[in-house]
Amino acid sequence: MEMELDSEGRMVVRPLLTDLYQATMALGYWRAGRACEAAEFELFFRHCPFGGSFALSAGLQDCMRFLRAFRLRDADVQFLASVLPPDTDPAFFEHLRALDCSGVTVRALPEGSLAFPGVPLLQVSGPLLLVQLLETPLLCLVSYASLVATNAARLRLIAGPDKKLLEMGLRRAQGPDGGFTASIYSYLGGFDSSSNTLAGQLRGVPVAGTLAHSFVTSFSGSEVPPDPMLAPASSEGPTVDLPARVNLWLKRVCLYLGLEEQEPHPGERAAFVAYALAFPRAFQGLLDSYSVRRSGLPNFLAVALALGELGYRAVGVRLDSGDLLQQAKEIRGIFRTAGAQFQMPWLESVPIAVSNNIDESELMRLAQKGSEVNVIGIGTSVVTCPKQPSMGCVYKLVSVGGQPRIKLTEDPEKQTLPGSKAAFRFLGPDGSLLLDLLQLAEEPPPKAGQELRVWPRGTQEPCTVKPAQVEPLLRLYLQQGQLCEPLPSLDESRRFAQQSLSLLRPAHKQLQSPAVYPVALSEKLRALVDSLSARGPL
Amino acid sequence: MEMELDSEGRMVVRPLLTDLYQATMALGYWRAGRACEAAEFELFFRHCPFGGSFALSAGLQDCMRFLRAFRLRDADVQFLASVLPPDTDPAFFEHLRALDCSGVTVRALPEGSLAFPGVPLLQVSGPLLLVQLLETPLLCLVSYASLVATNAARLRLIAGPDKKLLEMGLRRAQGPDGGFTASIYSYLGGFDSSSNTLAGQLRGVPVAGTLAHSFVTSFSGSEVPPDPMLAPASSEGPTVDLPARVNLWLKRVCLYLGLEEQEPHPGERAAFVAYALAFPRAFQGLLDSYSVRRSGLPNFLAVALALGELGYRAVGVRLDSGDLLQQAKEIRGIFRTAGAQFQMPWLESVPIAVSNNIDESELMRLAQKGSEVNVIGIGTSVVTCPKQPSMGCVYKLVSVGGQPRIKLTEDPEKQTLPGSKAAFRFLGPDGSLLLDLLQLAEEPPPKAGQELRVWPRGTQEPCTVKPAQVEPLLRLYLQQGQLCEPLPSLDESRRFAQQSLSLLRPAHKQLQSPAVYPVALSEKLRALVDSLSARGPL
Repeated sequence: MEMELDSEGRMVVRPLLTDLYQATMALGYWRAGRACEAAEFELFFRHCPFGGSFALSAGLQDCMRFLRAFRLRDADVQFLASVLPPDTDPAFFEHLRALDCSGVTVRALPEGSLAFPGVPLLQVSGPLLLVQLLETPLLCLVSYASLVATNAARLRLIAGPDKKLLEMGLRRAQGPDGGFTASIYSYLGGFDSSSNTLAGQLRGVPVAGTLAHSFVTSFSGSEVPPDPMLAPASSEGPTVDLPARVNLWLKRVCLYLGLEEQEPHPGERAAFVAYALAFPRAFQGLLDSYSVRRSGLPNFLAVALALGELGYRAVGVRLDSGDLLQQAKEIRGIFRTAGAQFQMPWLESVPIAVSNNIDESELMRLAQKGSEVNVIGIGTSVVTCPKQPSMGCVYKLVSVGGQPRIKLTEDPEKQTLPGSKAAFRFLGPDGSLLLDLLQLAEEPPPKAGQELRVWPRGTQEPCTVKPAQVEPLLRLYLQQGQLCEPLPSLDESRRFAQQSLSLLRPAHKQLQSPAVYPVALSEKLRALVDSLSARGPL
Repeated sequence: MEMELDSEGRMVVRPLLTDLYQATMALGYWRAGRACEAAEFELFFRHCPFGGSFALSAGLQDCMRFLRAFRLRDADVQFLASVLPPDTDPAFFEHLRALDCSGVTVRALPEGSLAFPGVPLLQVSGPLLLVQLLETPLLCLVSYASLVATNAARLRLIAGPDKKLLEMGLRRAQGPDGGFTASIYSYLGGFDSSSNTLAGQLRGVPVAGTLAHSFVTSFSGSEVPPDPMLAPASSEGPTVDLPARVNLWLKRVCLYLGLEEQEPHPGERAAFVAYALAFPRAFQGLLDSYSVRRSGLPNFLAVALALGELGYRAVGVRLDSGDLLQQAKEIRGIFRTAGAQFQMPWLESVPIAVSNNIDESELMRLAQKGSEVNVIGIGTSVVTCPKQPSMGCVYKLVSVGGQPRIKLTEDPEKQTLPGSKAAFRFLGPDGSLLLDLLQLAEEPPPKAGQELRVWPRGTQEPCTVKPAQVEPLLRLYLQQGQLCEPLPSLDESRRFAQQSLSLLRPAHKQLQSPAVYPVALSEKLRALVDSLSARGPL
């Protein structure tokens, strides 16, 4: 019951998936007569995750779905009544019951955008009580989606464009929904596919998967397939007893590899045969249930060659333990010579897939020049983001009743940027990104070709910049509860993310100790910050 | 749509929240005529998380709910058909459509048990195809729940029994469900409450929360409460204009603290007054929106003293930045002297709550002797488990058709323990835990007071052990799809976890470099492992 259905029958986050203090504050606002004051919050992060200099923004579709379906049900209001003071005015609960997002306006970075510290991913404006209540679910929906998308984008940068990246972390995810979210947003960030079937069914993520060790070890070799016969790929010619043909090939393969014929495990071979009978056009061998060299590889070759005779081509092998790079090299070598030996040249290029706790540094090794690895399955480290498992997004009040608001606190870093703002991206003549500019919403937009004095954050000095192009960053998606433009599809956002990343300069794209991408304030915004900071008690 | 409703109207994980390879293997088993062979899998972990020597097992209730509701819907089967070979026998899909868990039996560690490496958290037996399909969702439901419960138990051990621990990590969680799961299982592991309202509504977790900086900064001080009047706590006597009384108290407080009366921020004071009007019996001040010493604290005191005059007692203050330990000390000092000065002795013991990226080492500091901190809010580090964001549970085939199965692989560590097993916990005469024993299911159970030769894992030598008590570890929860005993409530499991932890010896309870808790194999199990390892190709 963490979720409920929206009008299209899709699951959405329930309004009470929020911190209790949102509800206690709601009562506070209401009691102060301020429930309907116009307020604006910004959702942003303070530091790029993983020590990098960029993030990808993601989760917008889930936010929109949540906002459009937002209604407190009777049971929700009753629960709140049970934890709020017993003498609370019933009119407050009537107010809650009537809440929906018809007064809410959202501007946002388009899904898959490059995002930088302090630049809002979302600007949410509407009645104070309501937009306060939205804080926790919106953070929850944006933070993790953006974190995983960013993580996936980093892994894609390491892997280069040619390696296939498969996300397979569902079992290691932080809960079912963590796994579901990760599958969607690692695809957005640049992965090719996911093992997560539900992400395929519900969101169109390409799914992939073949077999696990349990399948292999479940066979002892004494099993007799009820129907061992297989027709040729072309359907022309007689069917063939596949296990019998595999046994013939096994002799030749063992002779060729210098192995005794009884060394390859008969159960593993039976498993490969069973899988090949079910998937003759998509046979993959998992090689390391017993021993790669003495069992997995000869058994795979025997089955692949028997299939090859019938016109089928094996689609790959997978390794899940040991030194993956080294084994891939050895296996490719054997595929090359065996392909020649047995006159099946396609064997040379059978894709080699690897998995087993692959993180950024192991991926770097696997993606090095000359690597014979083709497909890389990544689970825990894309899904749980162990380098930094939380994005640290915040949702801060920037104005109430048209007046800017600031939080000063004991940590200067936690100071907020006041006022309703606009954001722009400046590009150089070559299309590469120069900086992002935050300014007050009422200021005229900056113009391409015009020199401008701005204040880069984290410095005490202004600088001048002349952009060749200026792009407004925030788009109006929800106006008074109405969707203003259709949201892009997952595939469109995925392409947009890759295209955006291609405009990032190499110095910012570096994954370790990158150059910081500048985010600057306009003179007016900077002056507002100064005046509000000075006004606060010091 | 990640979830669906079970017969009690509760959300459960959908069967397709699984890896595609479970479905391709299902076809493989089916094609091999083995779909209904009796199989048994064990769900366990190889290493305790966070470098500790124990874990808590959790997630059983979610697993049971999932199993009892397990059915593939037409849309699910249609999706699978769309990603499996087009010529797949339609009878396979009929088989899938008819699947349910009426043939599944589950033994498990009771919720909240101490769990150690290699000892099954779940033993799942039933038809091969089906119990294979269950792998990913079961892992997904158990791993994260157990990880968070263990994390919370560690934090509770650090905090000691008296500090109140509040989980408040929903916004930083890995997706909505990650947040929901974390709130439930951090409570199970020893936290006192959660900010997550939905966890309160749906699972009975005590919820807590008051106000955030946005509430404070939303007030400028010019707001006029529509109704500033407050009745005394006893309801006897006239109502009082609270903001007016607060202003009188402010003068006295500023004089006492040596501050100018205009130093405390009027907006912060207005926010405190608004909150106090809504929650006169539960007033808490968040002190660090501007400056703790010059604004938050005097404003809090003014409101708390004005409430005190009316017979209300403030319930606390919260700090969210700066040196929390030091500030708590200073604030407690001021509360003591101000309580005496203004003859409100209860002020001395107003609880001080703190939050702000608190992890194990910061918690250790905050829980030190003499600390004046009473309530500790922990978000990111309990919810996302940054020290190790994944438990690494696995689900391994141990027998098929009554025959034991083993996986050898290239990594000796990934070798599995074959055969259907029973597990026992040996206790010493003082009730403390000695070791866990794994043996074959057919062996007679070990007896208290009898010396036994066992093989501790990770050593090459046997040892003898004489337990004063022997406890069977695994209980039968689901037999042929029927629930055998009611599952304990969350509160019962929470108590059980704390009681179990109290039996763990201090050397095993240590959080850094603890003594490894021994898990041993019976002689027969050890012999089986040896014989199957020898049989495999080396």
